[in-house]
Amino acid sequence: MRISELSASTGVPIATIKYYLREGLLPEGVRTSATQAVYGDLHERRLGVIRALVSSGVSIADIRRVIAALDDPPASPHELLGLAHSAVTPPADETIDLAAAEVLATRLGWTPGMCDPALLGQIARSLETLDLAGFTVPDAVMSAYLDAAAAIAQAELSEVPAESAEAAVRYVVLGSVLVEPLLLGLRRVAEQVASSQRFGSATGAPAAPMPGQSSE
Amino acid sequence: MRISELSASTGVPIATIKYYLREGLLPEGVRTSATQAVYGDLHERRLGVIRALVSSGVSIADIRRVIAALDDPPASPHELLGLAHSAVTPPADETIDLAAAEVLATRLGWTPGMCDPALLGQIARSLETLDLAGFTVPDAVMSAYLDAAAAIAQAELSEVPAESAEAAVRYVVLGSVLVEPLLLGLRRVAEQVASSQRFGSATGAPAAPMPGQSSE
Repeated sequence: MRISELSASTGVPIATIKYYLREGLLPEGVRTSATQAVYGDLHERRLGVIRALVSSGVSIADIRRVIAALDDPPASPHELLGLAHSAVTPPADETIDLAAAEVLATRLGWTPGMCDPALLGQIARSLETLDLAGFTVPDAVMSAYLDAAAAIAQAELSEVPAESAEAAVRYVVLGSVLVEPLLLGLRRVAEQVASSQRFGSATGAPAAPMPGQSSE
Repeated sequence: MRISELSASTGVPIATIKYYLREGLLPEGVRTSATQAVYGDLHERRLGVIRALVSSGVSIADIRRVIAALDDPPASPHELLGLAHSAVTPPADETIDLAAAEVLATRLGWTPGMCDPALLGQIARSLETLDLAGFTVPDAVMSAYLDAAAAIAQAELSEVPAESAEAAVRYVVLGSVLVEPLLLGLRRVAEQVASSQRFGSATGAPAAPMPGQSSE
């Protein structure tokens, strides 16, 4: 199909498609003349991936690295996941103290050298942020976070598709990155449900008083 | 303390403190003359909260709403959580189809009217993004996400501090928002651990071949 048809079928403006072509995110079409090229299913699928990553807030530079993994997959899904995570995790600040993050990671089964230090850096930064706000995660809650993370990862990794390398690549790269807003959304709704059960009512009945406030 | 001392003790530049004062994020100090005011512990704690929210990517407009909840807490933790979630969740696009999000929310115990529709909108948007990328979450994995979200929320809500309204407010508002990067970081590390167990090795031994590739 021509670029105008690719634009019509994907809803991506022609100027944006040309930008992705220039940036190397989308492979060139097959030239039919000096000024025209034709595009196929690969371009349609790839545009879907790019749009999904863009709408997830992934930068063009990071998308380029994710796309490179799709185009030239490393030898194993494990290397691939490492590459996907590195592409979307900012490098660790070398001055950040990773000790507390390593303690949590060890509880997940992590051993030194197992993954890009940037991943521990992300945990260390989030712990620093909580500390800055004077917020302490209670031990029982932290245990729930670790159990939940381990259960999620086990379920995800046991479903890596085996039918083709391309399917495995898509599953690992996209599943890791694009699912994050879904997980956060599900947690917020689950919090509302748990909060309603503990403190309030879904039917508009008066809610329980705030702890420390008089109930009068 | 003077504004220069507040700046020194918190590491927030004076110009930034003045900006937060103008924006109403930080309450005025006690005036000691037409041009001077003194600040106290409340200002130090509040600056910690603001910096943590800023570094979590929360916009100034959203921080204003979170701060308003800290200053004037609603009657119950349940209302407060709703307010905190509404402050940090973009309004639902009215054209978005919430049906699939409602199915998932119902599996969490949600009933119609229980929470701000924006929360369902966040789930609906993330499902749309996955769809756009041609990505399907396997049923077993979605069940793991729902179980994890419910377990996290139950653990969090059973630890809401009861000693004061202020403590409950801080716990609910900050815990809901600031913990998100921690959860995502823990999931990434857990994925690396599960991936290493399934496909690779933490000790540098050869990794398993990609599904669909020859192992020769």
